[in-house]
Amino acid sequence: MFNHLFWIVPSASILALTFSWIFFKNMMKESEGTERMTSIAAHVRSGAMAYLKQQYKIVTFVFLAITIIFSFMAYVLHVQNPWVPFAFLTGGFFSGLAGFFGMKTATYASARTANAARKSLDSGLKIAFRSGAVMGLVVVGLALLDIAIWFLILNKFYPVKPGDSHTLVIITTTMLTFGMGASTQALFARVGGGIYTKAADVGADLVGKIEAGIPEDDPRNPATIADNVGDNVGDVAGMGADLYESYCGSILATAALGAAAFMHGDVATQIKAVIAPMIIAAVGTILSIIGIFNVKTKEGASQRELLDSLGRGINLSSLLIIIFSAGVLFLLNLPNALGIWMSLVIGLLTGIIIGKSTERFTSYSFTPTKIIAENAKTGPATVIISGLGVGMLSTVIPVLAIVVGTILAFLSATNFEIHNMSGNISLGLYGIGIAAVGMLSTLGITLATDAYGPIADNAGGNAEMSKLGPDVRRRTDALDALGNTTAATGKGFAIGSAALTALALLASYVEEVRIGLMRIPEKAALFEASEKIKLSKASLMDFMNYFNVTLMNPKVLMGILIGSMMAFMFCGLTMNAVGRAAANMVDEVRRQFKEIKGILEGKADPDYARCVAISTKGAQKKMMLPSLLAIIMPILTGLILGVSGVMGLLVGGLATGFVLAIFMANSGGAWDNAKKYIEEGHFGGKGSDAHKAAVIGDTVGDPFKDTSGPSLNILIKLTSMVSIVMAGLIVAFSIM
Amino acid sequence: MFNHLFWIVPSASILALTFSWIFFKNMMKESEGTERMTSIAAHVRSGAMAYLKQQYKIVTFVFLAITIIFSFMAYVLHVQNPWVPFAFLTGGFFSGLAGFFGMKTATYASARTANAARKSLDSGLKIAFRSGAVMGLVVVGLALLDIAIWFLILNKFYPVKPGDSHTLVIITTTMLTFGMGASTQALFARVGGGIYTKAADVGADLVGKIEAGIPEDDPRNPATIADNVGDNVGDVAGMGADLYESYCGSILATAALGAAAFMHGDVATQIKAVIAPMIIAAVGTILSIIGIFNVKTKEGASQRELLDSLGRGINLSSLLIIIFSAGVLFLLNLPNALGIWMSLVIGLLTGIIIGKSTERFTSYSFTPTKIIAENAKTGPATVIISGLGVGMLSTVIPVLAIVVGTILAFLSATNFEIHNMSGNISLGLYGIGIAAVGMLSTLGITLATDAYGPIADNAGGNAEMSKLGPDVRRRTDALDALGNTTAATGKGFAIGSAALTALALLASYVEEVRIGLMRIPEKAALFEASEKIKLSKASLMDFMNYFNVTLMNPKVLMGILIGSMMAFMFCGLTMNAVGRAAANMVDEVRRQFKEIKGILEGKADPDYARCVAISTKGAQKKMMLPSLLAIIMPILTGLILGVSGVMGLLVGGLATGFVLAIFMANSGGAWDNAKKYIEEGHFGGKGSDAHKAAVIGDTVGDPFKDTSGPSLNILIKLTSMVSIVMAGLIVAFSIM
Repeated sequence: MFNHLFWIVPSASILALTFSWIFFKNMMKESEGTERMTSIAAHVRSGAMAYLKQQYKIVTFVFLAITIIFSFMAYVLHVQNPWVPFAFLTGGFFSGLAGFFGMKTATYASARTANAARKSLDSGLKIAFRSGAVMGLVVVGLALLDIAIWFLILNKFYPVKPGDSHTLVIITTTMLTFGMGASTQALFARVGGGIYTKAADVGADLVGKIEAGIPEDDPRNPATIADNVGDNVGDVAGMGADLYESYCGSILATAALGAAAFMHGDVATQIKAVIAPMIIAAVGTILSIIGIFNVKTKEGASQRELLDSLGRGINLSSLLIIIFSAGVLFLLNLPNALGIWMSLVIGLLTGIIIGKSTERFTSYSFTPTKIIAENAKTGPATVIISGLGVGMLSTVIPVLAIVVGTILAFLSATNFEIHNMSGNISLGLYGIGIAAVGMLSTLGITLATDAYGPIADNAGGNAEMSKLGPDVRRRTDALDALGNTTAATGKGFAIGSAALTALALLASYVEEVRIGLMRIPEKAALFEASEKIKLSKASLMDFMNYFNVTLMNPKVLMGILIGSMMAFMFCGLTMNAVGRAAANMVDEVRRQFKEIKGILEGKADPDYARCVAISTKGAQKKMMLPSLLAIIMPILTGLILGVSGVMGLLVGGLATGFVLAIFMANSGGAWDNAKKYIEEGHFGGKGSDAHKAAVIGDTVGDPFKDTSGPSLNILIKLTSMVSIVMAGLIVAFSIM
Repeated sequence: MFNHLFWIVPSASILALTFSWIFFKNMMKESEGTERMTSIAAHVRSGAMAYLKQQYKIVTFVFLAITIIFSFMAYVLHVQNPWVPFAFLTGGFFSGLAGFFGMKTATYASARTANAARKSLDSGLKIAFRSGAVMGLVVVGLALLDIAIWFLILNKFYPVKPGDSHTLVIITTTMLTFGMGASTQALFARVGGGIYTKAADVGADLVGKIEAGIPEDDPRNPATIADNVGDNVGDVAGMGADLYESYCGSILATAALGAAAFMHGDVATQIKAVIAPMIIAAVGTILSIIGIFNVKTKEGASQRELLDSLGRGINLSSLLIIIFSAGVLFLLNLPNALGIWMSLVIGLLTGIIIGKSTERFTSYSFTPTKIIAENAKTGPATVIISGLGVGMLSTVIPVLAIVVGTILAFLSATNFEIHNMSGNISLGLYGIGIAAVGMLSTLGITLATDAYGPIADNAGGNAEMSKLGPDVRRRTDALDALGNTTAATGKGFAIGSAALTALALLASYVEEVRIGLMRIPEKAALFEASEKIKLSKASLMDFMNYFNVTLMNPKVLMGILIGSMMAFMFCGLTMNAVGRAAANMVDEVRRQFKEIKGILEGKADPDYARCVAISTKGAQKKMMLPSLLAIIMPILTGLILGVSGVMGLLVGGLATGFVLAIFMANSGGAWDNAKKYIEEGHFGGKGSDAHKAAVIGDTVGDPFKDTSGPSLNILIKLTSMVSIVMAGLIVAFSIM
C-alpha cells in the first residue's frame, strides 16, 4: 500500500542537511578578523553555549518526568499509545538539536560577518545570510528526517492493509506526540531565551542608553556581552526550536486530518492524503535551497536593493511552490486536487497579507509608527499609550485575513458547499491544514532571512565593541535594519500557520477522544447507544453531539473563559519575569558604574560575567511556571470539565492568544521602529527628550515582541498537543 | 394571571426616587462656601453641563437613525417586533436621564462637600455620600420604573392567558430591546466621557505634575477645570449610564430566561419566574435605602474607620438581601426555590471574591502594587512592564471565580444533575441570571459608594483651587482615598454581573432566533423537518443542533476569533483617542505656560476654556467609531456567517473582553496606587525619580482603568443586545 512518492521526503531532508553542512563549512573557512574581534566572539559564544547547556539540563529533567508519566499512562493505566514516550523524546531531542546547531552557527558567524563587512556589503550579506540558511535548512532537514523515520517505523509495525482505514489514523495521531515533544522544547526555549535576552537588553538600555548616555553595544556597558549572548539564545536558538515546532505541527496535524478525512474511502487515497503535506514540505525545501542561491547583492546597495535581493529569493521559492505543489497534488491524484491546491494558495496569500499588515503597522515608512514617534514629543506616557493603541488596532487585518482565509480554504477543499458546512468538516479542515503547510513549505528560506537578523545584529555588536571604523558599522547596520523588515513576512507566516494549525489540531483532538473511548468498552458502548452509530464510523459531528460541545453548554463556555485567561496569565508571568530580571540587571549595572572606577572612561573593564549570570538565573528560575501552564491547564480542565471543557479551553486559548500575540508583537515592533525613526533625526533626533521617551517605549516593547508575544503561538499549540496526548486519560477519568 | 407581588416593583421605584429627591433637596440647602468656591463650582458645573448637552445631541441623532432602521425593519420588512422602536427609545432616554441627574447632583455637591469638610470630616462624608446616594437611587428608581411601565403596558396589549406560555416569551424579549437602548446610551456615555476625562487628566498631569512640578488641581494649571469637569462627565454621568444598563440588563435577561425556562409548565409559574428578578431588585432597593441611612462616621476617624462605616452600610444591605430574597422566592413558591436562592447567594459570593481580588491587586496594602512601586526605582519602563504583568496576572482569580460561580449557580438551579448538564439548560441559565441579579440587587447603595468617589475628588479639587487650609484638604483627601477603595467592591459586582448577564443573554438570543424563524413559514418548516419537533416546543439544544453551533463549525470558530479581535480593536480605538486628545492637551498647556506671562507665578489666569474645548472636541469626534463597532459587528457577522457565527462572536467577545477588561482596570488601578504609595514617602517619595516614573505609569493607566476597561463591559452586553434585536433580520437574510 506504500506510495513511493514518499521517498521525496527523506531525500529532501538529506539534501537540506547536506547543504547546511556545506554552508557551515564555507562560513568557517572565513577569518574572524582581528584578535579583539575573535576574543569578543569567543566570549559571546561561550556565554551562549553555557546558557544553552544549563537550559537543556533543566529541560531534560522536565522531559524525563513527562516521559515517566507517559510510560505510566501507557503501560500501567493503558490509556495511552505505547509509542508515545519515545515519539515525545525524539521530538524534543531534534528540536533542541536544531536550536543548538543554529546557535552554534550564529555565534561563529557574527565576527566573520563583521570582518567580511570590512571588505564589502555583499560579502557581509553573503556570510550572514548563508549562516542564517544553515539554521533554516537544519530545521527543515531535521523535521523532515524525524517525520520520515517515524512514518517508516510505524508503517513497519502497523502495516496498512487494504480496507483497514483505522491504522493510518493511529499512525498519524501517534506521530502527533512527537509534535508535543517539539512544542515542549520550543516553549521552554522561547520563554527561557526570551526572558534571558530581554532582561539583558532592557537592563543594558535602561542604564546604558538612558542614564549613562552611551551607545548600543558599547564595551563600557557591563550588560553588553549578556545582551549579545541574549540575541543568540533568544532570537536564534529560541526561534529555531519555535519554527521546528510550527513546521512539524502543521505537517503532522494535516497528515492526521488527511487520515481522518479520507477514512471512508479506499486506503490508497488515504495514504496519499497523509503523505501529501509531507511531500509538499519536501518539495518546498528543495525550492528553498534554489531560492537561497538567488540571494546576492552588489556593493553600495541601498536598503531598497538589499530588500529586493532577499525578496527575490523568497518570492522565487513561493512562486515555485505554487506551481510544484499543483504538480504534486495532481501526481498524487487526490480527489478534488484542484480544491486542495486552491486551499494551499489561499494559505500562502493569507500569510502574505498578515506579513504586509505587520509591515504596515511596524515599519516607520508608514503612518502608525510615525504617529507613535510623534507622540514621543509629549513624553513616555503618550508613547506607551499610542503604541498600545496601535498594537491593538493592528490585530484587525490579520484576524480578518485568517477568518477569510480559513473559510475559503475550508470551502475550496469541500467544493464550496456553502450551505452545508457540516457536510464534510474533516475534508474542510484538511484544506485548512494544507493552507498552513503551504505557508510554511518554504520555511528553509524564510527562516534563513529570519535567523540572519540576529547574526547581522551581533556582527554590529562585534564591530562596535572591536572599535571598527564607522563604515563597517554602517554596513552591519544596513544588514541589521534589513533583517528587521524581512522578519515581518516570516512572522506573518509563523503567526498565520500557528492559528491554522491550532484549528486543525482541534479535529485531531476529537480523533484521539475516539481512540480513547475505544480503549474503554463500557464508555464506547454508551457512546454507540446514544449516537446510534459505531464508534469507529462516528463523524466529528457525532462527537460534538455526544459531548454537547455547543455554545450553550456551560462547560464549553467556561472552558473558553479559562483559555482566554490562560493566555493573559502566561503573558503576565513572562512579563513579570523579564521585569524582575531586568530590574536586577539595572541594579547590577548601576553598581558597576559606581563601584568600578574608570569604567565609563574606558580605563577599567566591566564585570561582564556577573551580568551574564543574572540573565541566566532569571531565565532559568522564571521559565518553569509559564511553560508548565500549557501542560497543566488542559489536564486539569479536562479532569474537571471533561472533553467539552477541553475543547472550550483550546478555542478560548487560540482566539485570545492569537489576537494577544499579534497585539504584543506589533506594539513591540512599532515602538522599536518609532525609536529608530527618531534616531534618524526626526522630532529632535538622538539624545532629545523625544528620543528618551521613545527608548522607554522600545524597552517596554522588548518583552512584548521577543518574550511574551512569540511564546504565545507555541503556548496555543502545546496546549492542543497536550490535550491530544492526554485525551485517553481525560476520557477515562474526567468527573463531569 | 397577574401576580400581585409585582406591585412591589413600582412601589420600590417611587420610594427610591422620593428619597433621592429628599437627599438632593437636603444637600442643596447647604452652603457652597466662599465666593471663590462657588465660582469654581459654577465653572465646573457649566463645563460639565455644556459637555453633556453636546454629547446628548450627538447621541440623539444616533438614536433617531437606529429608530428609523428599527421602524423600517418592523413595519416594512416585518422582521422585527412593532414595539421595538419605542422600547429602544425609552431605554436610552431613562439611561441618559439617570446620568444627567447624577451629574447635576455631583456638580452641586462638590463645593458643598468641601465647605462641610471645613467643619468636620463627618459632615463632609455625609454630604458626599448622600449625594452619591442620589445617583444610586435615581439609577435604580428609573430602571425599576421603566421595567414596571413596560411590563404593565405589554401585559395590557398581550394578555397572558392560561395555557399560552409563548406570550411571556414575547413580552420579555421585547423588553430586552429597551435594554439595548440603555446599553447604547451607556456605551456612548462611557466612551465619550472616558475620552474626555482622561484626555484632560493625562494632559494636566504630564505638563503640570511632571514638567512644571505643580501639584494636582493647582489653579495655575490651565487643564485643571477640564480635569474636574472630566471627573463628572466620565466618572459620574458615564458610570450612571453604565450601571443603569447593567442593572436593567441583568433583570431583563433573567426575566426572559425565566419565561423560557418555565415555558413547558403552567403559566402562573412562568409569570412568577419572570417577575422574581424584578421583585428581588425591588426589595434590594428598599434594603439599599436602609443601608444608606447606616453610613456615618465621627470626627478624626481613621481611614480604617471611614472604610468600616461605608462597609457597614453595604454589608447590612447584602446580608439583608440574602435573607429577604429567600422570603421572596418562597413566597412566590417557585419550583426548586431553594436551588434558585442558592444561585443568588453564589452570585453575591462571586462578586465579593472578585472585589477582594481587585483590592488585592490594586491596593498598596498588598504586595503586587508595592512591587510596581519598587520597580519605579529603575525608571518608567520597568514600572510599565510590571504594571502590565500584574494586571495580566490579576485576571486569574476573577475568571476562576466566575467559572466556579457560574457552574455552581447553574448546578444548584438544576438540582446538581452533574452528568446531564444539557438536561435543563434553560433552568440552569436562569440560575446564572439570578446570580447576576443578586450581585446588582443592592446597587442603590453600592453605586452610592462609587459615585461618592468623584464627588469627594472634586471637593478636593475645589478646596485646592480655592486655597482652603491644609486640614480641609487632608479631610477631602481622606474621603477621596476612601472612595478609591470602596469602588473595588462595586467594580467586582459590575464586572461579575456583566459576565453572567452576557452568558444569560446568549439564551435570549436563541429565543429571538426562534421568534424570527416563526415569522418566516418556509424557514420554520425547514427547521421542523430537520429537527423533527415543533418550532415553538424546540429546546435550546435543538437550535444548537440545527444551526450547528459546535466548536467544529468553522463559522462558529471564526465568529469567536472576530469577537476576540473586536475587543482589542475597541480598546485600540479608545486608547488612541485618549492618546491623541491628551497630546493636544499637552501642547495647549505647554503653549499657555509659554505664552501667557506670569501664569506659573499665579499672577495671570490661564485660559481654562480652551482646554475644556480640546477635551470636548476629542471626545465627540472619537467616540463614534468604537461605539458603533458594537452595533455594526454583530449585524455584519450575522449577515455573512449566520446564527452560528453570531453566537461565536458573542462568546469570543465575552471571553476576551471580560479578561481584557479586568486586566486593564487592574493595571490602571495598581499604577494609580503605586504612585500614591511612593507619594506617602516610599522609594524617595514625592518629587524623586521613582515618583516621576510612577506618575508616568499612572498616566498610562488612566485610559486603561477609566476609558477602555470599563467600556468593555458595556461593549460585550451591547453586542449581545444588538444581536438579539437583529436576530429576525439575520434569520431572514444571512447568506451562509
